[in-house]
Amino acid sequence: MREKKIYLTEQEIPNSWYNMKADLPKQLPPMIMADTLQPPAVEMLERIFAKPLIEQELSTERYIEIPEEVKKLYTMYRPSPLIRANFLEEKLGLKSKLYFKYEGVSPSGSHKSNSAIAQAYYNKSIGMKRLVTETGAGQWGSALSMACKVFDLECVVYMVKVSYNQKPYRKMLMETYGATVYPSPSEHTSAGRAILAKTPNTSGSLAMAISEAIDDALQDDHSRYALGSVLSHVVLHQTIVGQEAKKQFDIINEYPDIVVGCIGGGSSLSGMAFPFVHDKLTKGKDALRIVSVEPKACPKFTKGVYAYDFGDASNMTPLIPMYTLGNGFTPSSIHAGGLRYHGGNAELSLLIKEGIVEAKAIGQKDVFAAAVLFAQTEGIIPAPESAHAIAQAIIEAQNADAEGKPKTILFNLTGHGHFDMSAYDNYLSGEMQDIIPTDDEINESLKTIPKAPDISNY
Amino acid sequence: MREKKIYLTEQEIPNSWYNMKADLPKQLPPMIMADTLQPPAVEMLERIFAKPLIEQELSTERYIEIPEEVKKLYTMYRPSPLIRANFLEEKLGLKSKLYFKYEGVSPSGSHKSNSAIAQAYYNKSIGMKRLVTETGAGQWGSALSMACKVFDLECVVYMVKVSYNQKPYRKMLMETYGATVYPSPSEHTSAGRAILAKTPNTSGSLAMAISEAIDDALQDDHSRYALGSVLSHVVLHQTIVGQEAKKQFDIINEYPDIVVGCIGGGSSLSGMAFPFVHDKLTKGKDALRIVSVEPKACPKFTKGVYAYDFGDASNMTPLIPMYTLGNGFTPSSIHAGGLRYHGGNAELSLLIKEGIVEAKAIGQKDVFAAAVLFAQTEGIIPAPESAHAIAQAIIEAQNADAEGKPKTILFNLTGHGHFDMSAYDNYLSGEMQDIIPTDDEINESLKTIPKAPDISNY
Repeated sequence: MREKKIYLTEQEIPNSWYNMKADLPKQLPPMIMADTLQPPAVEMLERIFAKPLIEQELSTERYIEIPEEVKKLYTMYRPSPLIRANFLEEKLGLKSKLYFKYEGVSPSGSHKSNSAIAQAYYNKSIGMKRLVTETGAGQWGSALSMACKVFDLECVVYMVKVSYNQKPYRKMLMETYGATVYPSPSEHTSAGRAILAKTPNTSGSLAMAISEAIDDALQDDHSRYALGSVLSHVVLHQTIVGQEAKKQFDIINEYPDIVVGCIGGGSSLSGMAFPFVHDKLTKGKDALRIVSVEPKACPKFTKGVYAYDFGDASNMTPLIPMYTLGNGFTPSSIHAGGLRYHGGNAELSLLIKEGIVEAKAIGQKDVFAAAVLFAQTEGIIPAPESAHAIAQAIIEAQNADAEGKPKTILFNLTGHGHFDMSAYDNYLSGEMQDIIPTDDEINESLKTIPKAPDISNY
Repeated sequence: MREKKIYLTEQEIPNSWYNMKADLPKQLPPMIMADTLQPPAVEMLERIFAKPLIEQELSTERYIEIPEEVKKLYTMYRPSPLIRANFLEEKLGLKSKLYFKYEGVSPSGSHKSNSAIAQAYYNKSIGMKRLVTETGAGQWGSALSMACKVFDLECVVYMVKVSYNQKPYRKMLMETYGATVYPSPSEHTSAGRAILAKTPNTSGSLAMAISEAIDDALQDDHSRYALGSVLSHVVLHQTIVGQEAKKQFDIINEYPDIVVGCIGGGSSLSGMAFPFVHDKLTKGKDALRIVSVEPKACPKFTKGVYAYDFGDASNMTPLIPMYTLGNGFTPSSIHAGGLRYHGGNAELSLLIKEGIVEAKAIGQKDVFAAAVLFAQTEGIIPAPESAHAIAQAIIEAQNADAEGKPKTILFNLTGHGHFDMSAYDNYLSGEMQDIIPTDDEINESLKTIPKAPDISNY
């Protein structure tokens, strides 16, 4: 009898993270400063991020060793299970097979712990006392709060205001892990005060919260900033997910035809997909498709442009080469708060541009229909972000079945939705709406992209 | 390297539940009706519960086979991991070893799914269309809601009013699984209306909600009642937990000196402990201690009496031989809603009376101190109920260390606290109180025990 859940032993936790940069079909356009158009000074970056993380950010080594202490803390929840969604398959009468990697087993409830533990470790290793960050839905803030506590670091979280109000239990969770949480934009930082002066009624965005967190971290020598997605070192840490998945498919002698993940800043899809992109690029696994899925309310890969843009809302970061809607884009208050971000990770953006990763978008009502179906068959309540991947995986499975060519589909169920129940309540009450930006609104937002070298034909 | 988490394969899920009745040192006093003082007519019981469950309730067979379909659904989350709490041990500098069985991996978030899936299966198997139940903290209601959905049964839940108000996400979870939820006492049943007439401002209790659920179930031929604890068949289903734990200890060549579990109606401790009680009684494992821990706010085993009492508040059930505070006891609104019950399972009560299981009580502030310490070291946010077991396990470990005789301690972490964050908020804000009944209040409450044969010297 085939097991529903495929486990690895803790001994089998991968020893290294996989660096996508080593295998990209083209070198990435470099990160540059908006004023000089030159790469940022390393000293400047090191004032914001811990030095070992900057080294990882810039590295092109294919494999970067995971420190023993990080691996020890990973045993709190890793390796995560690979699970066959057989009850969902039966309900839908599918011939295609659906597998998901379940990162909701982490104590903080999502894959974000994979990078949070690593970032807390490296900051502790260079003598830092305090980490400052932003959070959208709260997954990243929860993960960093927990990681800081186990490394005895102070933790301060700027939480996007709409999520802060929608998800009080998330705040309480972070506080239980010992963190201080502010709704963003706030009066605590000059960046926040400037945003509030311009848009006093804003519901906030990840980009705004990033501005505040960087601003706060710069006020104190023993503070550093920590980011939960977008950057190369964050996505690097997440590649433990895809590497484990490959080992688990080896155990059952299978291999996915399609890998699906949701996309906010990029860590959810990329962490799962990059080890498979490696196979696609280096081993000629032509049949393998990799599909990103984003909310129609925040369609950077399907409606945005490939350009240099800031990572935050206040033009504090270097310019990153990425698909973007413009850093002035404020997505509507969809429940998948973690996907409300104007841009995407640089490696992933290049892979999209090169046609190696496909881009799809789904509206939130369709996403919740899939989430409820999943909950009622597999039992697990998915996070609204991860539910995008479920919805797309079901579409892919049904398409494959309709073509008479059933496929093996893997998706990343990056978190549970236990702190998102009000979103389910909103859906079940029939009051949920799809608020999708018009082309005019997107064109307006694209105008906020700064002047910089054109990379649209890179 | 020893693994932190010990897994079994799905093939190793036990094939049978273990029936404690087969090995009790004395036969249980029989369940009797308050009016006739005779055992209830089986037909009457079958009007309330599915017939196969009544058979299990009355069985004295040592092992009862688990149906294949139930085992298949158990693979959603079983076998649950046995986890070494090494990070907590390190924090406390313990020489004693702490292990926990983590039932929070179930989709509904607690061990309650173990019986919910079985009960839904048996009700479906005899053609029932609808199950009615009560829930305290919401763990049982969530579990039954999910189980009913996968077996395509309608589910109605009467939720103790104080929990309904404290835990809105629990209600939303049950509704996501398709259930209908009422705060209890309610106007929906004659039992509820009678209670409201007498005590309009009551915050409710499990005993009251049980009255309402039975009343509702009796209104329709294709409805049955389902209970989440107390009764023999419920505790029977939970014994899968302890049986798995024993297999897991075999793998690491260890065996616990002390087994700890919290006690509400009895399913949490008993499910873990009964397979170990079997060893203690039949294999002469004298060293093994089994420790129950209850809230000081609801001290049935430490301050109650061994007597015949009703299981509900409205005198609808047969009389059960158990430790009780009297079915008129209304515990204070502690956050561990699942432990707010006046009595305890009959087998467990007899084992307490015979000195085979020990009884301890802890106040809720001490419980939450342990819960926060656990969250900040092991990452997992424990349910307030399960946190009683953590607190007692720590006390046992520290006592053993102090005596210079470190022990191996196993506790049942029956659920996560993701839907109980307001309780953590209450604790962290410094506003939590221990409201403990006085001896006078308990004596007053004991007067609500009905007239029936004296079993205090049984």
